[in-house]
Amino acid sequence: MDRIKISLDEKDLPRRWYNLAADLPSPPLPPVTPDGKPITPDMLAPVFPMNLIEQEVCARRWVDIPDEILQILAMWRPSPLYRARCLEKHLKTPARIYYKHEGLSPPGSHKPNTAVAQAWYNKQFGIKRLCTETGAGQWGSALAFACRLLGLECKVFMVRISFDQKPFRRLMMETWGAACTPSPSPETQAGRAILEKMPDTPGSLGIAISEAIEAAVTDPTGKSRYSLGSVLNHVLLHQTVIGLEAKKQLKKFGEKKVDAVIACAGGGSNFAGIALPFVADKIAGAQIDIIPVEPESCPTMTRAPYVYDHGDTARMTPLLPMHSLGHAFVPPPIHAGGLRYHGIAPLVSAGIRAGLITPRAYHQLRCYESAVLWARTEGFIPAPETSHAIACVIDEARKAAEEGKEKVILFNWSGHGLMDLSGYDAYFRGKLQDYSLPQEELDRSLAVLAGLPKPK
Amino acid sequence: MDRIKISLDEKDLPRRWYNLAADLPSPPLPPVTPDGKPITPDMLAPVFPMNLIEQEVCARRWVDIPDEILQILAMWRPSPLYRARCLEKHLKTPARIYYKHEGLSPPGSHKPNTAVAQAWYNKQFGIKRLCTETGAGQWGSALAFACRLLGLECKVFMVRISFDQKPFRRLMMETWGAACTPSPSPETQAGRAILEKMPDTPGSLGIAISEAIEAAVTDPTGKSRYSLGSVLNHVLLHQTVIGLEAKKQLKKFGEKKVDAVIACAGGGSNFAGIALPFVADKIAGAQIDIIPVEPESCPTMTRAPYVYDHGDTARMTPLLPMHSLGHAFVPPPIHAGGLRYHGIAPLVSAGIRAGLITPRAYHQLRCYESAVLWARTEGFIPAPETSHAIACVIDEARKAAEEGKEKVILFNWSGHGLMDLSGYDAYFRGKLQDYSLPQEELDRSLAVLAGLPKPK
Repeated sequence: MDRIKISLDEKDLPRRWYNLAADLPSPPLPPVTPDGKPITPDMLAPVFPMNLIEQEVCARRWVDIPDEILQILAMWRPSPLYRARCLEKHLKTPARIYYKHEGLSPPGSHKPNTAVAQAWYNKQFGIKRLCTETGAGQWGSALAFACRLLGLECKVFMVRISFDQKPFRRLMMETWGAACTPSPSPETQAGRAILEKMPDTPGSLGIAISEAIEAAVTDPTGKSRYSLGSVLNHVLLHQTVIGLEAKKQLKKFGEKKVDAVIACAGGGSNFAGIALPFVADKIAGAQIDIIPVEPESCPTMTRAPYVYDHGDTARMTPLLPMHSLGHAFVPPPIHAGGLRYHGIAPLVSAGIRAGLITPRAYHQLRCYESAVLWARTEGFIPAPETSHAIACVIDEARKAAEEGKEKVILFNWSGHGLMDLSGYDAYFRGKLQDYSLPQEELDRSLAVLAGLPKPK
Repeated sequence: MDRIKISLDEKDLPRRWYNLAADLPSPPLPPVTPDGKPITPDMLAPVFPMNLIEQEVCARRWVDIPDEILQILAMWRPSPLYRARCLEKHLKTPARIYYKHEGLSPPGSHKPNTAVAQAWYNKQFGIKRLCTETGAGQWGSALAFACRLLGLECKVFMVRISFDQKPFRRLMMETWGAACTPSPSPETQAGRAILEKMPDTPGSLGIAISEAIEAAVTDPTGKSRYSLGSVLNHVLLHQTVIGLEAKKQLKKFGEKKVDAVIACAGGGSNFAGIALPFVADKIAGAQIDIIPVEPESCPTMTRAPYVYDHGDTARMTPLLPMHSLGHAFVPPPIHAGGLRYHGIAPLVSAGIRAGLITPRAYHQLRCYESAVLWARTEGFIPAPETSHAIACVIDEARKAAEEGKEKVILFNWSGHGLMDLSGYDAYFRGKLQDYSLPQEELDRSLAVLAGLPKPK
């Protein structure tokens, strides 16, 4: 029998998260206000609990993971590291392809790695209720799950078109006891204002974020906070268990080095989770291609400038130093909902600027083609987001075959596609198409940045 | 940290399947023809390959698992054994509750344990294409997955009402490359005959079985066979990896004995998978309650007689010695589609007759209530079938609390409910009800057995 996976014991769970901020060639820029002043912890206090704000600005390389968080992560962690032998054979490649299977968690993706941590820190701080937004529903269901296990209330504003079209993700949230409301809703001022103007709007992630933040900060008890599923430093930090586990597992597979680390990237957290511990190795001198993959239709990393921009459409968040298509950018409705975001995490942006991280973009049809090939060789059906990483892995493996090189490729299989089969349906029936963002549309979208401070 | 799971390494996969037939107090009765003659292997040859027919009548205690089957099982096996600490805490029970998590396979249930084995034996025998039927779609998707990995064609006749109402399961099959046809279909004589009489019929498992067998036996190349996902001896045999793994894992948890082994039972294969290796211990003198759980609305084991009956509605199969509600019985449309079967595996029936196995029945609402409690304590969302086992586990754990006994309870968490959330939806919205089969209806249903041979 050829070994195809390493399942670590739960006693081998990493005890510390890795913080790339400590190792970057130059320290990360701070978030700022629209008039260019650095954001202070106090300014964030109504939105996030102080212990997470401290983590957000933490400069230490390693952060201890509290035992109670480890105890919950052990429900599905360490996640197995697989070797994709059937795909290798199909591609006739000398490359060895390894993947972290993050789809085995109860919500089916990497998202609960941070949802559990955030819920725990909020609970420690005395918070009783978390508010968030969700698009396709991966993040909302992960936070619903985490809040239920920790005894917090959970309120999710779900973009209305997804609420109507994806009842299964909503039902997951309800099964875990979360209150899930279609957004815009009459429950917030922001929602009511939109509904008055556009009663039939399908909603947007921007509107849903505004509603979630408003619901958190206006709770008269003061016991509600807001929770975000990607982009921020503390979210990326919580995901580094993925890469830290992968290092141990690669060693057990007998691998001494890695040539490429690949993951899809929307806000950047699943990519960061597997990649940041390897970025550290690269800073220390290792030769590794570290590749986040995004959709051609939402080319934040590959075509957008590095700027200061808001994290949300309604400009309620501070300005973050990041690659951004402009906070008003509305990506076309491709099926990888988790990759439809105008910005990308500041830490990932800093890594791109430093030349440590080299992003790529792929078209939707190539990704579905890769996803189906994956399912028919490796068995597990990937999420549309994950298929972006797979498309890139296949390219790298084919290149290795052409060059006759024994490359070691590691990637993050971020989640299963069982709640997203309507996208496969559309693909099989020829209803999907590719979309390249025209330069003039990108230019128009970037115009909203006029007058905002620039990163130095 | 308290240990919550044991993940064995793939080198610890069982190398042999366990065959209860070798240990039963009296040898199992053979299947017979309607005039009472034992079925010979030759009579089954057009339907199954000879190597599986041999396995069906095998009397050896242990059957070696071919390496190539182990290699594929290693994609998700050994499955972890979990301890349900959060549920225990919630119930304030001194019982220790363990469960085998069979929901982590690519199709999401225990079904591929036998699908892979059957596809492999068929391939060895030179077969190119497998035909089967599926109701809710768990079995059809498992066989589609297995056939794809082994390079066989797969043809699935899916009960038309499920085909229309459960597009996601159908899409899983298509993603793995299977041809999935709503049944009744114009592709078979059986299908055409039904469509002529009832063009708008929603279909039934009985009709779908007839179509699948016909499609297999009428293939002019002779390279098609039929495949069944439960009931038969060889299917149960393939599932025993579950119980064999569980024994090793319980030892690693430090357990020296088990007090109760519990699983839901439709055709009987997931129950048999975890239970049969423990039935062996019981025969050898151990005190264990071994409990298959069925729906009150389809009370095969708890209310139906032990008889000779056909496995399908259309009477194409031999007569099997088993508990049966009568082959024409149509169970009410409860959401646990996998438990809606009129019979139960002959091996399980023999165990019940011998007093080794003590079945119970539960109502649907209790099961959903238990499923939601499970999801809110242990995280993973169970299939409606699995929830029947959970309801019984909760009862046993509460009894242990009342009695102050440190019981060890093991059960089979047979699959996830992510493709079945519409059942949860109906439950949350108060649209489900319980149903007890009236005695006169049962009597009417059993009348079809008149004139058939009786087991001695």
